[in-house]
Amino acid sequence: MITSMSNPTIKNVAKLIKQSKERRKQGTFIVEGVRMFSEIPEEKHVESFVTMDFYDKHRQMFEGISYELVADNVMESLSDTKTPQGVISIVKQLSYGIDEICGADVPLIIALENIQDPGNLGTIVRTAEGAGASGIIMSRDTADVYNPKVVRSTMGSIFRVPFLYVDDIAGCIKDLSGKGFNTYSAHLQGTSFYDFNYMKPTVFVMGNEGNGLTDAVSGATDHKILIPMKGRVESLNVATASTVLMYEAMRQRSL
Amino acid sequence: MITSMSNPTIKNVAKLIKQSKERRKQGTFIVEGVRMFSEIPEEKHVESFVTMDFYDKHRQMFEGISYELVADNVMESLSDTKTPQGVISIVKQLSYGIDEICGADVPLIIALENIQDPGNLGTIVRTAEGAGASGIIMSRDTADVYNPKVVRSTMGSIFRVPFLYVDDIAGCIKDLSGKGFNTYSAHLQGTSFYDFNYMKPTVFVMGNEGNGLTDAVSGATDHKILIPMKGRVESLNVATASTVLMYEAMRQRSL
Repeated sequence: MITSMSNPTIKNVAKLIKQSKERRKQGTFIVEGVRMFSEIPEEKHVESFVTMDFYDKHRQMFEGISYELVADNVMESLSDTKTPQGVISIVKQLSYGIDEICGADVPLIIALENIQDPGNLGTIVRTAEGAGASGIIMSRDTADVYNPKVVRSTMGSIFRVPFLYVDDIAGCIKDLSGKGFNTYSAHLQGTSFYDFNYMKPTVFVMGNEGNGLTDAVSGATDHKILIPMKGRVESLNVATASTVLMYEAMRQRSL
Repeated sequence: MITSMSNPTIKNVAKLIKQSKERRKQGTFIVEGVRMFSEIPEEKHVESFVTMDFYDKHRQMFEGISYELVADNVMESLSDTKTPQGVISIVKQLSYGIDEICGADVPLIIALENIQDPGNLGTIVRTAEGAGASGIIMSRDTADVYNPKVVRSTMGSIFRVPFLYVDDIAGCIKDLSGKGFNTYSAHLQGTSFYDFNYMKPTVFVMGNEGNGLTDAVSGATDHKILIPMKGRVESLNVATASTVLMYEAMRQRSL
């Protein structure tokens, strides 16, 4: 049993929790908790760290997989939550190509430029799966999807929704437009999103929490669309706006 | 200029930031930042604390209102954000009755049972204003809407959407049902929410992030409704689900 935070393996876990750069270098990320543990695809699991208590209660979960026992205080130090559930795992990063993002009969893609809040990003991934989106494209300056806060907010959808970081998101959107996708940017100077139909391959493009989309990116889309707002609301939260658009596409497609 | 955190006025601001009980006792709450400052209704403003820098740039904002200058280090200690904007205000709590919650031609009410995450609660308030909801009813065990994190997430909607905490939310829902409201609980064993129309006075009832609605509360509604989800998503984030329902009501009502 590992009892010290200065154990090199544990030090490495702590690094993977904190540093996006380290996650990229090692090609792994960290998931915490029993629910997320149960979502890990077998071939992606690298190693788990479990408390004795947790191991005793869930022995069958660890048959045939690599794990190490850790002391309660080590788990508490590593854990992102006040009441650690007793399991933390190192998992291999996922890797998708644009074909997988587009891999549906009628693809529905959500493209994100420079989204910074981990909770927003995680919620968008979760909602994307729920609304039947085929994948997510992100500008390189978007938050790291492997940040533990993002991972937790996805509630497991991170393992099931294809995603891709791209250097040139405007170029990527233009490419998709050329391939027959209808591309829409969420924009305060747009036309009501109710005026369009989303039965064809669709891309919704969403911008940064504070600043919205850059002109280069909104200019790359076929249409600017606005979600009508009452009262004196100037904009919606980006996860909220993404929800409204994706669920409208789902509604139209299920009619 | 106040230069010390041990100044009694500043100590009181710190208390109001941290303690829901103290906010209730004093009937006030704290808002931070220039944007929120500009949203404060004049008659609700009690006192603002500003840095010299901020005051110099926004002198006209403080004409005729009560304010005190504070040193930069005091502002940094009080502030909830890494880069304080330079203004923090004490504001009187708002107070609404059930008549104001229902005060629209065709009311749309969102009722919350035991929502705990401040970000979720704030986002729901913001989205409620955007979707034209007439008000929000909350069970007493829901998070404090005056928590600074909630206040910030509302982006000012806290000043414009009527809300009410009630001891008996099930009873309140039954009352509204008796008054001609159609009441719907978000429920995993419900009927698709697309099968209903929300043209009449409507209440959507949403439950706790982890546990959903208690049977007592979902049992008090006329209908249980489910938001269809694809993939292996078991539930949506509660702010996401509220968004889908409120914007569907808005869509139907604008047809």
